[in-house]
Amino acid sequence: MRQAHAILTFQTDGQGLLDVTPDIHSWLRACDIQMGTVTLFCQHTSASLLINENAAPAVRRDILRWLDMAAPEGDYYEHDSEGSDDMPAHIKSMLTGNSLTVPFADGKMLLGTWQGVYLAEHRADAHRRYVVCHAMGD
Amino acid sequence: MRQAHAILTFQTDGQGLLDVTPDIHSWLRACDIQMGTVTLFCQHTSASLLINENAAPAVRRDILRWLDMAAPEGDYYEHDSEGSDDMPAHIKSMLTGNSLTVPFADGKMLLGTWQGVYLAEHRADAHRRYVVCHAMGD
Amino acid sequence: MRQAHAILTFQTDGQGLLDVTPDIHSWLRACDIQMGTVTLFCQHTSASLLINENAAPAVRRDILRWLDMAAPEGDYYEHDSEGSDDMPAHIKSMLTGNSLTVPFADGKMLLGTWQGVYLAEHRADAHRRYVVCHAMGD
Repeated sequence: MRQAHAILTFQTDGQGLLDVTPDIHSWLRACDIQMGTVTLFCQHTSASLLINENAAPAVRRDILRWLDMAAPEGDYYEHDSEGSDDMPAHIKSMLTGNSLTVPFADGKMLLGTWQGVYLAEHRADAHRRYVVCHAMGD
Repeated sequence: MRQAHAILTFQTDGQGLLDVTPDIHSWLRACDIQMGTVTLFCQHTSASLLINENAAPAVRRDILRWLDMAAPEGDYYEHDSEGSDDMPAHIKSMLTGNSLTVPFADGKMLLGTWQGVYLAEHRADAHRRYVVCHAMGD
Repeated sequence: MRQAHAILTFQTDGQGLLDVTPDIHSWLRACDIQMGTVTLFCQHTSASLLINENAAPAVRRDILRWLDMAAPEGDYYEHDSEGSDDMPAHIKSMLTGNSLTVPFADGKMLLGTWQGVYLAEHRADAHRRYVVCHAMGD
Protein backbone atom coordinates (compact mmCIF):
# COMPACT_ATOMS: atom_id res chain seq x y z
CA MET A 1 0.00 0.00 0.00
CA ARG A 2 1.21 3.46 -0.91
CA GLN A 3 -0.12 6.99 -0.74
CA ALA A 4 0.32 10.24 -2.63
CA HIS A 5 -1.06 13.70 -2.18
CA ALA A 6 -1.07 17.07 -3.88
CA ILE A 7 -2.96 20.33 -3.73
CA LEU A 8 -4.70 21.17 -7.00
CA THR A 9 -5.46 24.82 -7.73
CA PHE A 10 -8.57 25.96 -9.59
CA GLN A 11 -9.50 29.40 -10.76
CA THR A 12 -13.25 29.94 -10.56
CA ASP A 13 -15.24 32.45 -12.50
CA GLY A 14 -17.65 33.42 -9.73
CA GLN A 15 -20.72 31.44 -8.71
CA GLY A 16 -20.97 28.17 -10.61
CA LEU A 17 -20.06 24.50 -10.81
CA LEU A 18 -16.67 23.63 -12.28
CA ASP A 19 -16.17 20.07 -13.52
CA VAL A 20 -12.90 18.93 -11.93
CA THR A 21 -13.23 15.26 -12.92
CA PRO A 22 -10.58 15.44 -15.69
CA ASP A 23 -8.08 17.20 -13.41
CA ILE A 24 -8.48 14.55 -10.73
CA HIS A 25 -8.11 11.77 -13.29
CA SER A 26 -4.91 13.34 -14.68
CA TRP A 27 -3.48 13.56 -11.19
CA LEU A 28 -4.53 9.98 -10.34
CA ARG A 29 -2.82 8.59 -13.44
CA ALA A 30 0.37 10.47 -12.56
CA CYS A 31 0.29 8.94 -9.03
CA ASP A 32 0.84 5.48 -10.37
CA ILE A 33 -1.40 3.81 -7.79
CA GLN A 34 -3.59 1.29 -9.58
CA MET A 35 -6.44 0.77 -7.17
CA GLY A 36 -7.57 2.39 -3.95
CA THR A 37 -9.48 5.41 -2.71
CA VAL A 38 -9.00 9.08 -3.45
CA THR A 39 -10.00 11.70 -0.89
CA LEU A 40 -10.77 15.18 -2.18
CA PHE A 41 -10.83 17.96 0.35
CA CYS A 42 -11.84 21.56 -0.41
CA GLN A 43 -9.93 24.00 1.83
CA HIS A 44 -12.64 26.67 1.86
CA THR A 45 -15.84 27.57 3.67
CA SER A 46 -17.51 29.33 0.75
CA ALA A 47 -16.74 26.74 -1.92
CA SER A 48 -17.43 23.00 -1.78
CA LEU A 49 -17.31 19.69 -3.62
CA LEU A 50 -20.28 17.80 -4.96
CA ILE A 51 -21.17 15.02 -7.33
CA ASN A 52 -23.96 15.52 -9.76
CA GLU A 53 -25.11 14.91 -13.30
CA ASN A 54 -22.51 15.58 -15.97
CA ALA A 55 -24.88 15.52 -18.96
CA ALA A 56 -27.66 18.15 -19.13
CA PRO A 57 -26.24 21.59 -18.17
CA ALA A 58 -29.76 22.58 -17.07
CA VAL A 59 -29.33 20.28 -14.05
CA ARG A 60 -26.42 22.40 -12.88
CA ARG A 61 -28.35 25.62 -13.40
CA ASP A 62 -31.29 24.19 -11.43
CA ILE A 63 -28.94 23.18 -8.61
CA LEU A 64 -27.52 26.69 -8.39
CA ARG A 65 -31.02 28.20 -8.41
CA TRP A 66 -32.15 25.78 -5.71
CA LEU A 67 -29.17 26.71 -3.51
CA ASP A 68 -29.96 30.42 -4.05
CA MET A 69 -33.53 29.77 -2.99
CA ALA A 70 -32.51 27.72 0.08
CA ALA A 71 -29.93 30.26 1.30
CA PRO A 72 -30.90 33.58 -0.28
CA GLU A 73 -29.01 36.82 0.06
CA GLY A 74 -30.85 39.25 2.30
CA ASP A 75 -30.80 40.82 5.71
CA TYR A 76 -31.43 37.53 7.52
CA TYR A 77 -27.85 37.19 8.64
CA GLU A 78 -25.93 38.62 11.57
CA HIS A 79 -22.62 38.07 9.73
CA ASP A 80 -22.70 40.53 6.83
CA SER A 81 -19.30 42.20 6.97
CA GLU A 82 -17.86 40.26 4.01
CA GLY A 83 -20.65 40.99 1.54
CA SER A 84 -24.22 39.84 1.08
CA ASP A 85 -23.13 36.66 -0.77
CA ASP A 86 -20.79 35.50 2.01
CA MET A 87 -23.14 33.99 4.58
CA PRO A 88 -25.26 32.24 1.88
CA ALA A 89 -21.97 30.80 0.58
CA HIS A 90 -21.08 29.38 4.01
CA ILE A 91 -24.49 27.70 4.25
CA LYS A 92 -24.30 26.26 0.72
CA SER A 93 -20.81 24.99 1.43
CA MET A 94 -22.02 23.24 4.59
CA LEU A 95 -24.98 21.65 2.77
CA THR A 96 -22.91 20.24 -0.07
CA GLY A 97 -19.74 19.38 1.85
CA ASN A 98 -15.96 19.74 1.72
CA SER A 99 -14.82 16.14 1.70
CA LEU A 100 -15.42 13.33 -0.79
CA THR A 101 -13.85 9.87 -0.81
CA VAL A 102 -14.20 7.88 -4.03
CA PRO A 103 -12.85 4.40 -4.83
CA PHE A 104 -10.76 4.23 -8.01
CA ALA A 105 -9.20 1.64 -10.31
CA ASP A 106 -6.83 2.01 -13.27
CA GLY A 107 -6.49 5.74 -12.70
CA LYS A 108 -10.22 6.48 -12.82
CA MET A 109 -12.70 7.11 -10.05
CA LEU A 110 -15.46 4.49 -10.01
CA LEU A 111 -18.10 7.06 -10.88
CA GLY A 112 -21.44 6.12 -12.36
CA THR A 113 -22.05 6.90 -16.03
CA TRP A 114 -23.79 10.20 -15.30
CA GLN A 115 -21.65 11.40 -12.41
CA GLY A 116 -19.15 14.23 -12.46
CA VAL A 117 -17.20 15.78 -9.58
CA TYR A 118 -17.77 19.52 -9.31
CA LEU A 119 -16.03 22.27 -7.42
CA ALA A 120 -18.87 24.58 -6.40
CA GLU A 121 -17.99 28.26 -6.16
CA HIS A 122 -20.61 29.91 -3.97
CA ARG A 123 -19.20 33.47 -3.94
CA ALA A 124 -20.24 35.98 -6.62
CA ASP A 125 -16.64 36.87 -7.50
CA ALA A 126 -13.89 34.79 -9.09
CA HIS A 127 -11.60 33.02 -6.60
CA ARG A 128 -8.53 30.84 -6.57
CA ARG A 129 -9.55 27.59 -4.82
CA TYR A 130 -7.46 24.73 -3.43
CA VAL A 131 -8.44 21.05 -3.34
CA VAL A 132 -6.26 18.56 -1.49
CA CYS A 133 -6.13 15.23 -3.38
CA HIS A 134 -4.97 12.19 -1.46
CA ALA A 135 -4.76 8.70 -2.98
CA MET A 136 -4.12 5.49 -1.04
CA GLY A 137 -3.86 1.99 -2.45
CA ASP A 138 -1.67 -0.43 -4.40
CA MET B 1 -2.55 -3.29 5.17
CA ARG B 2 -4.82 -4.74 2.53
CA GLN B 3 -7.80 -3.58 0.53
CA ALA B 4 -10.86 -5.16 -1.07
CA HIS B 5 -13.67 -3.80 -3.16
CA ALA B 6 -16.92 -4.90 -4.74
CA ILE B 7 -19.99 -3.37 -6.29
CA LEU B 8 -23.18 -4.30 -4.43
CA THR B 9 -26.46 -4.18 -6.33
CA PHE B 10 -29.75 -3.14 -4.76
CA GLN B 11 -33.21 -3.22 -6.21
CA THR B 12 -35.29 -0.34 -4.91
CA ASP B 13 -39.03 -0.15 -4.81
CA GLY B 14 -39.38 3.49 -5.76
CA GLN B 15 -38.96 6.41 -3.36
CA GLY B 16 -37.84 5.26 0.06
CA LEU B 17 -34.97 4.42 2.40
CA LEU B 18 -33.51 0.92 2.13
CA ASP B 19 -31.48 -0.33 5.11
CA VAL B 20 -28.26 -1.68 3.57
CA THR B 21 -26.42 -2.15 6.88
CA PRO B 22 -26.75 -5.98 6.88
CA ASP B 23 -25.52 -6.23 3.26
CA ILE B 24 -22.44 -4.16 4.03
CA HIS B 25 -21.73 -6.21 7.14
CA SER B 26 -22.01 -9.47 5.18
CA TRP B 27 -19.59 -8.15 2.59
CA LEU B 28 -17.16 -6.86 5.26
CA ARG B 29 -17.06 -10.23 7.00
CA ALA B 30 -16.33 -11.94 3.67
CA CYS B 31 -13.42 -9.52 3.04
CA ASP B 32 -11.50 -10.88 5.97
CA ILE B 33 -10.03 -7.51 6.96
CA GLN B 34 -10.32 -7.15 10.74
CA MET B 35 -10.04 -3.43 11.25
CA GLY B 36 -9.98 -0.38 9.02
CA THR B 37 -12.32 1.90 7.11
CA VAL B 38 -15.01 1.09 4.61
CA THR B 39 -15.93 3.61 1.91
CA LEU B 40 -19.40 3.35 0.41
CA PHE B 41 -19.99 5.15 -2.85
CA CYS B 42 -23.37 5.42 -4.59
CA GLN B 43 -22.92 5.59 -8.37
CA HIS B 44 -26.07 7.62 -9.03
CA THR B 45 -27.27 11.23 -9.06
CA SER B 46 -30.86 10.48 -8.09
CA ALA B 47 -30.13 8.06 -5.24
CA SER B 48 -27.81 8.61 -2.29
CA LEU B 49 -26.47 7.22 0.98
CA LEU B 50 -27.33 8.46 4.43
CA ILE B 51 -27.09 7.47 8.05
CA ASN B 52 -30.12 7.87 10.22
CA GLU B 53 -32.15 6.29 13.00
CA ASN B 54 -32.77 2.59 12.60
CA ALA B 55 -35.49 2.28 15.25
CA ALA B 56 -38.76 4.23 14.77
CA PRO B 57 -39.91 3.90 11.13
CA ALA B 58 -41.72 7.24 11.54
CA VAL B 59 -38.30 8.95 11.49
CA ARG B 60 -37.71 7.65 7.98
CA ARG B 61 -41.16 8.77 6.83
CA ASP B 62 -40.54 12.24 8.29
CA ILE B 63 -37.19 12.42 6.49
CA LEU B 64 -38.81 11.57 3.16
CA ARG B 65 -41.55 14.15 3.76
CA TRP B 66 -38.98 16.78 4.68
CA LEU B 67 -37.01 16.10 1.50
CA ASP B 68 -40.23 16.36 -0.55
CA MET B 69 -40.95 19.70 1.11
CA ALA B 70 -37.39 21.00 0.57
CA ALA B 71 -37.22 19.98 -3.12
CA PRO B 72 -40.83 19.64 -4.26
CA GLU B 73 -41.98 18.54 -7.69
CA GLY B 74 -43.32 21.46 -9.68
CA ASP B 75 -42.57 23.77 -12.54
CA TYR B 76 -39.63 25.41 -10.76
CA TYR B 77 -37.05 23.53 -12.78
CA GLU B 78 -35.53 24.14 -16.18
CA HIS B 79 -34.54 20.46 -16.46
CA ASP B 80 -37.84 18.56 -16.75
CA SER B 81 -37.26 16.19 -19.64
CA GLU B 82 -36.82 13.11 -17.45
CA GLY B 83 -39.99 13.47 -15.41
CA SER B 84 -41.16 15.77 -12.64
CA ASP B 85 -39.46 13.68 -9.95
CA ASP B 86 -36.02 13.81 -11.60
CA MET B 87 -34.74 17.27 -10.67
CA PRO B 88 -36.01 16.98 -7.06
CA ALA B 89 -34.13 13.65 -6.94
CA HIS B 90 -30.87 15.32 -8.04
CA ILE B 91 -31.23 17.95 -5.31
CA LYS B 92 -32.06 15.40 -2.61
CA SER B 93 -29.09 13.31 -3.71
CA MET B 94 -26.77 16.32 -3.44
CA LEU B 95 -28.09 17.22 0.03
CA THR B 96 -27.65 13.75 1.47
CA GLY B 97 -24.48 12.70 -0.38
CA ASN B 98 -22.97 9.86 -2.38
CA SER B 99 -19.95 8.95 -0.29
CA LEU B 100 -19.63 7.67 3.28
CA THR B 101 -16.49 6.45 5.03
CA VAL B 102 -17.02 4.50 8.24
CA PRO B 103 -14.39 2.91 10.51
CA PHE B 104 -14.97 -0.78 11.23
CA ALA B 105 -13.66 -3.54 13.52
CA ASP B 106 -14.37 -7.28 13.59
CA GLY B 107 -16.47 -7.11 10.44
CA LYS B 108 -18.84 -4.42 11.76
CA MET B 109 -18.98 -0.70 11.08
CA LEU B 110 -18.50 1.31 14.28
CA LEU B 111 -22.03 2.68 14.12
CA GLY B 112 -23.79 4.12 17.12
CA THR B 113 -26.61 2.09 18.69
CA TRP B 114 -29.33 3.90 16.77
CA GLN B 115 -27.56 4.32 13.43
CA GLY B 116 -28.33 2.49 10.22
CA VAL B 117 -26.90 3.02 6.72
CA TYR B 118 -29.62 3.70 4.16
CA LEU B 119 -29.65 3.73 0.41
CA ALA B 120 -32.08 6.53 -0.43
CA GLU B 121 -34.06 6.12 -3.63
CA HIS B 122 -35.30 9.55 -4.67
CA ARG B 123 -37.05 8.59 -7.92
CA ALA B 124 -40.72 7.55 -7.89
CA ASP B 125 -40.06 4.33 -9.82
CA ALA B 126 -38.16 1.21 -8.84
CA HIS B 127 -34.49 1.20 -9.91
CA ARG B 128 -31.47 -1.06 -9.80
CA ARG B 129 -28.79 0.82 -7.85
CA TYR B 130 -25.06 0.21 -7.46
CA VAL B 131 -22.96 0.93 -4.38
CA VAL B 132 -19.18 0.55 -4.54
CA CYS B 133 -17.83 -0.88 -1.26
CA HIS B 134 -14.14 -0.46 -0.56
CA ALA B 135 -12.44 -1.69 2.62
CA MET B 136 -8.89 -0.90 3.67
CA GLY B 137 -7.10 -2.12 6.79
CA ASP B 138 -5.43 -5.08 8.47
CA MET C 1 1.28 2.01 6.19
CA ARG C 2 -0.24 1.90 9.62
CA GLN C 3 -3.55 2.74 11.22
CA ALA C 4 -4.81 3.87 14.62
CA HIS C 5 -8.22 4.52 16.01
CA ALA C 6 -9.89 5.83 19.14
CA ILE C 7 -13.26 7.06 20.27
CA LEU C 8 -13.17 10.65 21.53
CA THR C 9 -15.87 11.78 23.96
CA PHE C 10 -17.32 15.27 23.99
CA GLN C 11 -19.74 16.82 26.42
CA THR C 12 -22.05 19.26 24.68
CA ASP C 13 -23.96 22.08 26.28
CA GLY C 14 -27.14 21.74 24.26
CA GLN C 15 -27.66 23.10 20.77
CA GLY C 16 -24.48 24.58 19.36
CA LEU C 17 -21.25 24.06 17.45
CA LEU C 18 -18.27 22.77 19.41
CA ASP C 19 -14.82 23.28 17.87
CA VAL C 20 -13.16 19.85 18.07
CA THR C 21 -10.15 20.74 15.88
CA PRO C 22 -7.67 20.92 18.82
CA ASP C 23 -8.85 17.56 20.20
CA ILE C 24 -8.37 15.86 16.85
CA HIS C 25 -4.93 17.41 16.45
CA SER C 26 -3.88 16.24 19.93
CA TRP C 27 -5.01 12.74 19.10
CA LEU C 28 -3.29 12.78 15.68
CA ARG C 29 0.03 13.82 17.20
CA ALA C 30 -0.22 11.01 19.75
CA CYS C 31 -0.82 8.49 16.92
CA ASP C 32 2.61 9.02 15.52
CA ILE C 33 1.52 8.69 11.89
CA GLN C 34 3.17 11.47 9.90
CA MET C 35 1.00 11.67 6.81
CA GLY C 36 -2.25 10.15 5.69
CA THR C 37 -5.98 10.61 6.11
CA VAL C 38 -8.09 10.87 9.23
CA THR C 39 -11.71 9.75 9.19
CA LEU C 40 -14.02 11.27 11.78
CA PHE C 41 -17.30 9.52 12.38
CA CYS C 42 -20.06 10.81 14.67
CA GLN C 43 -21.98 7.92 16.23
CA HIS C 44 -25.27 9.80 16.58
CA THR C 45 -28.35 10.72 14.57
CA SER C 46 -29.07 14.01 16.32
CA ALA C 47 -25.51 15.36 16.32
CA SER C 48 -23.17 15.68 13.33
CA LEU C 49 -19.81 16.89 12.06
CA LEU C 50 -19.23 19.87 9.85
CA ILE C 51 -16.49 22.16 8.67
CA ASN C 52 -17.06 25.86 8.73
CA GLU C 53 -15.48 29.21 9.45
CA ASN C 54 -13.43 29.36 12.64
CA ALA C 55 -13.12 33.14 12.83
CA ALA C 56 -16.30 35.23 13.20
CA PRO C 57 -18.60 33.59 15.83
CA ALA C 58 -21.56 35.25 14.05
CA VAL C 59 -21.11 32.73 11.20
CA ARG C 60 -21.81 29.91 13.62
CA ARG C 61 -24.87 31.65 15.03
CA ASP C 62 -26.18 32.25 11.50
CA ILE C 63 -25.64 28.57 10.66
CA LEU C 64 -27.63 27.49 13.71
CA ARG C 65 -30.42 29.93 12.86
CA TRP C 66 -30.51 28.73 9.26
CA LEU C 67 -30.79 25.10 10.40
CA ASP C 68 -33.63 26.07 12.76
CA MET C 69 -35.38 27.76 9.85
CA ALA C 70 -34.85 24.80 7.51
CA ALA C 71 -36.03 22.17 10.00
CA PRO C 72 -38.18 24.03 12.52
CA GLU C 73 -39.81 22.53 15.58
CA GLY C 74 -43.55 22.19 15.12
CA ASP C 75 -46.32 19.74 14.52
CA TYR C 76 -45.06 18.80 11.04
CA TYR C 77 -43.61 15.53 12.18
CA GLU C 78 -45.11 12.10 12.72
CA HIS C 79 -42.23 11.15 15.05
CA ASP C 80 -42.70 13.33 18.13
CA SER C 81 -42.34 10.91 21.02
CA GLU C 82 -38.80 12.03 21.94
CA GLY C 83 -39.51 15.76 22.17
CA SER C 84 -40.18 18.53 19.69
CA ASP C 85 -36.45 19.08 19.05
CA ASP C 86 -35.78 15.43 18.14
CA MET C 87 -37.04 15.18 14.57
CA PRO C 88 -35.51 18.56 13.58
CA ALA C 89 -32.23 17.22 15.02
CA HIS C 90 -32.39 14.10 12.81
CA ILE C 91 -32.92 16.25 9.72
CA LYS C 92 -30.10 18.66 10.61
CA SER C 93 -27.81 15.72 11.26
CA MET C 94 -28.63 14.24 7.84
CA LEU C 95 -28.03 17.57 6.08
CA THR C 96 -24.64 18.17 7.65
CA GLY C 97 -23.37 14.59 7.82
CA ASN C 98 -21.74 12.09 10.17
CA SER C 99 -18.54 11.27 8.34
CA LEU C 100 -15.58 13.44 7.34
CA THR C 101 -12.28 12.32 5.85
CA VAL C 102 -9.45 14.85 5.91
CA PRO C 103 -5.86 14.47 4.67
CA PHE C 104 -3.20 15.32 7.25
CA ALA C 105 0.54 15.88 7.48
CA ASP C 106 2.84 16.38 10.49
CA GLY C 107 0.00 15.79 12.93
CA LYS C 108 -2.29 18.46 11.47
CA MET C 109 -5.29 18.17 9.20
CA LEU C 110 -4.72 20.01 5.92
CA LEU C 111 -7.48 22.50 6.68
CA GLY C 112 -7.70 25.88 4.98
CA THR C 113 -6.81 28.97 7.01
CA TRP C 114 -10.42 29.68 7.96
CA GLN C 115 -11.66 26.12 8.47
CA GLY C 116 -12.49 24.48 11.77
CA VAL C 117 -14.04 21.06 12.44
CA TYR C 118 -17.19 21.32 14.53
CA LEU C 119 -19.27 18.80 16.40
CA ALA C 120 -22.82 20.04 15.93
CA GLU C 121 -25.21 19.32 18.79
CA HIS C 122 -28.74 19.56 17.41
CA ARG C 123 -30.67 18.64 20.58
CA ALA C 124 -31.74 21.31 23.06
CA ASP C 125 -30.24 19.48 26.03
CA ALA C 126 -26.62 18.71 26.90
CA HIS C 127 -25.40 15.30 25.69
CA ARG C 128 -22.33 13.12 25.83
CA ARG C 129 -21.27 12.51 22.21
CA TYR C 130 -18.83 10.02 20.68
CA VAL C 131 -16.66 10.59 17.62
CA VAL C 132 -14.64 7.70 16.17
CA CYS C 133 -11.25 8.92 14.92
CA HIS C 134 -9.37 6.70 12.52
CA ALA C 135 -5.98 7.59 11.01
CA MET C 136 -4.25 5.70 8.22
CA GLY C 137 -0.87 6.50 6.68
CA ASP C 138 2.89 6.36 7.18
